[in-house]
Amino acid sequence: MKAGSAVLLTGVASSDKTPAGPTTHSAGKVERWDVFELVLDGPKEGNPFLDTWLKATFRIGARDMAVDGFYDGEGVYRVRFMPDALGEWTYITDSSAPSLKGKTGAFETVAPRAGNHGPIRVRDVYHFGYSDGSPYFPFGTTCYAWVHQSEALQEETLSTLKTSPFNKLRMCIFPKWYQYNHSDPPRFPFPRQNNTNDYSRLNPEYFQHIEKRILDLQALGVEADLILFHPYDHWGFQEMPAEVDDRYLKYVIARFAAYRNVWWSLANEYDLMRKKNPADWDRFAEIVTQNDPYGHLRSIHYSRAPYDYSRVWCTHAGVQSYAFDQAASWRETWRKPLIFDEMMYEGNINSRWGNLSGPEMTRRFWLCIAAGAYGGHGETYVSAADIENDKALLWWSHGGKLKGSSPQRLSFLRRIVEETGTVGGGQIGLTQLQVPYYPSAKRNRDEAFLFYFDFHQPLYYDFLLPDTGKYRAELIDPWAMTVSPVPGEFSGKTRLTLSGQPYRALRFTRI
Amino acid sequence: MKAGSAVLLTGVASSDKTPAGPTTHSAGKVERWDVFELVLDGPKEGNPFLDTWLKATFRIGARDMAVDGFYDGEGVYRVRFMPDALGEWTYITDSSAPSLKGKTGAFETVAPRAGNHGPIRVRDVYHFGYSDGSPYFPFGTTCYAWVHQSEALQEETLSTLKTSPFNKLRMCIFPKWYQYNHSDPPRFPFPRQNNTNDYSRLNPEYFQHIEKRILDLQALGVEADLILFHPYDHWGFQEMPAEVDDRYLKYVIARFAAYRNVWWSLANEYDLMRKKNPADWDRFAEIVTQNDPYGHLRSIHYSRAPYDYSRVWCTHAGVQSYAFDQAASWRETWRKPLIFDEMMYEGNINSRWGNLSGPEMTRRFWLCIAAGAYGGHGETYVSAADIENDKALLWWSHGGKLKGSSPQRLSFLRRIVEETGTVGGGQIGLTQLQVPYYPSAKRNRDEAFLFYFDFHQPLYYDFLLPDTGKYRAELIDPWAMTVSPVPGEFSGKTRLTLSGQPYRALRFTRI
Repeated sequence: MKAGSAVLLTGVASSDKTPAGPTTHSAGKVERWDVFELVLDGPKEGNPFLDTWLKATFRIGARDMAVDGFYDGEGVYRVRFMPDALGEWTYITDSSAPSLKGKTGAFETVAPRAGNHGPIRVRDVYHFGYSDGSPYFPFGTTCYAWVHQSEALQEETLSTLKTSPFNKLRMCIFPKWYQYNHSDPPRFPFPRQNNTNDYSRLNPEYFQHIEKRILDLQALGVEADLILFHPYDHWGFQEMPAEVDDRYLKYVIARFAAYRNVWWSLANEYDLMRKKNPADWDRFAEIVTQNDPYGHLRSIHYSRAPYDYSRVWCTHAGVQSYAFDQAASWRETWRKPLIFDEMMYEGNINSRWGNLSGPEMTRRFWLCIAAGAYGGHGETYVSAADIENDKALLWWSHGGKLKGSSPQRLSFLRRIVEETGTVGGGQIGLTQLQVPYYPSAKRNRDEAFLFYFDFHQPLYYDFLLPDTGKYRAELIDPWAMTVSPVPGEFSGKTRLTLSGQPYRALRFTRI
Repeated sequence: MKAGSAVLLTGVASSDKTPAGPTTHSAGKVERWDVFELVLDGPKEGNPFLDTWLKATFRIGARDMAVDGFYDGEGVYRVRFMPDALGEWTYITDSSAPSLKGKTGAFETVAPRAGNHGPIRVRDVYHFGYSDGSPYFPFGTTCYAWVHQSEALQEETLSTLKTSPFNKLRMCIFPKWYQYNHSDPPRFPFPRQNNTNDYSRLNPEYFQHIEKRILDLQALGVEADLILFHPYDHWGFQEMPAEVDDRYLKYVIARFAAYRNVWWSLANEYDLMRKKNPADWDRFAEIVTQNDPYGHLRSIHYSRAPYDYSRVWCTHAGVQSYAFDQAASWRETWRKPLIFDEMMYEGNINSRWGNLSGPEMTRRFWLCIAAGAYGGHGETYVSAADIENDKALLWWSHGGKLKGSSPQRLSFLRRIVEETGTVGGGQIGLTQLQVPYYPSAKRNRDEAFLFYFDFHQPLYYDFLLPDTGKYRAELIDPWAMTVSPVPGEFSGKTRLTLSGQPYRALRFTRI
């Protein structure tokens, strides 16, 4: 047993291949929302993936949390746990294998270090926030298959993310076979020979690699929006038997759920997975809900058949849509946060979803924010030389470098949103962008108002501010990324002269 | 009786104030689709508007057409008739007044002069065409109250229209009271004293003036889309008693229906007329349908409550909407031509519907065309100095001069549409803009294809052309107004390198 160090250095234990030591945990300290990992030696004969189950119950005070362990190959079993409360935790294991059963121990959960804010939760119905109360406004991007590229490219992706506006990444657990994506991944999730998957086992190395990348994202402050299934497949993973689906899901949850930056997305374009039916998706939702003891954020992504996001298991809606004028209605219907996860991508390829201009991508993020929703970015640029080359690298799938003109504008918008502490809640349209307060920013409802003018270009406009306070006004140019104070103080009915140019914004902040 | 000259010079008779001469028409010649006008002396005592009815039946061969006459004041009665067939017509009047009854006559209808193509009809389900078979693609604009402005301003409006792209004008018969429109018109439709309308009579001068302007539009090749009722009222015209509504309607039809460039729009924003109920609109539709013997185009315009344009009386849909992606579905549902009559206006005022940029107005017209529908223009520009001046002149209501940047691009688009002889029929979206043939242009379905890329900026794109012919391709820049041939001939699956810029178009034409 050597979890004592692992618990303090998240990610180290997960690549630990040495045999486990003693089976009782010595006194250690774990940060709140970090990972306590129990490493146990157990049976390696037979097929541990099918034959052996392991779980542990963690207790603090009168509260128990039950967690599944998993087999990590070579006789090594692990139980990962993310403590959500400060103080003394104890645990006891249970297992079908006598050697893994009845192991007990204790550890202390201490205050998190800077940068560890805990998992994201839904807050104030339509928004998100970190568990420690810090605000979190999702600015997501998409690199579906980045973990299945060369190591050098993965490092480049991380380097790009470091200075990008993005604090959430949509990524697939399974490899992807699709346009510009026609090669085998370096590893497979199941043992595979002669183009046949051995579904009776899993390949621990595959998942070890992914969890390493989840932790890399965590270190950058990026949430890993994990896509559990998807239809863009060449190897059989979209049409596995139901019991394999379920075993895979439980294994993924057992391995990854203790990482605080994990979100679950049941699928990308679930409705394109022809072999699945609604009962399958219900079952997957049930498995994720029941097996993840931490209640990570859960959603599902569609292609053409909109999902009913009012379903209880969904924590938020993640739509593929460009119907921004529906945002207000969807919010009211679902009473959940709304993310336009896929609203086409900035790029220039020959698919209608992959050739938005940078100004249009920027505009769509502003429309989302103004509607009280959130946007999702992706990028699909090719060069003239790439056109015939199916191996061109596109950020949307491979990661690498960003080439577009929207990311720097999204950084600007993220700053605006974070400093305003408010996102929209009205309908799209110039007259209804007066937006509600975001309480986590410790402001009252009337503290700030953000307007986005979209294609409207008024030379002047009438605003109705609360007459209980005085406000300062700033003209914002989302493309030039400038904020220009308007001289004066304003209250009640306020007519302002504006630029007469489209795609501008305006912010009022209480003095 | 002096209709002999009137029939050859449309518009002259309508301003004729001299007493009518003989009651039998001497042999004259009338152009097909021009106006034969019979002028009769009749009773002026009492209230001719209520007391005296007059009608005439026109006959050619075995076919009869019954037409209402109208009282034009000062004892003058008129019957106007638009002959739709070449040859010898005879007529006979009937009336409640013995002096107007049993008048007979004949005239010959001759071939129209150049520029007279007859009234517009629906053609090929979704489109329009002139009665003589010439193509007509509506490019409409809006000057709601132009006929109620100063004479100088009206002349300026006509002068502007002369070189504009517009071949249809939406205009109100009643005066308008609304923002930037807060003054009495020079004339009223009913005798009016002490702010009270005498609904028992009409004011012929009011309607004489409007028909003069209808004919001015006709001379410019502009269709007059006459709005019969509207809610923007200060004088009582939106809440007249039902019998006054009906008398007014019949009077307007009797006076104006013989002008070939008349379209009927029951209302602007009918759903904002709180005193009217659905039965009223049904009755108005019935009156227009029954009393207009020529079957001019008929529709109605809404604000928030979309009308059911599948109703039999409607010849086409005239929507106030920006839901261009609904166009395909609406076309299929209604099986009628679809005009986005009001899709906001280019301008810079402080109303959400009145501050589109020129590029956005241009884009919306292209979206309409690409969807197999048609657009409607309007313009609402004010200067900084105008902001506080409620009397600023806005093209949308007053006419005058155009200031925007879209009209010249709409001229370009109109040229493209007319020379391509084709408009769209698919859905909005890059992949589905392959559009059907417009038969009046004497082309077969595969003759030409027009694509509009909207916010998409592909560097290359794959088109599927018929492999039964060879096509030439042209890149179109709707804003720069350039057409650039692409070298080569194309057939079947065709990959073209494009500009990588958004808001461009592409045309394929069969060689």
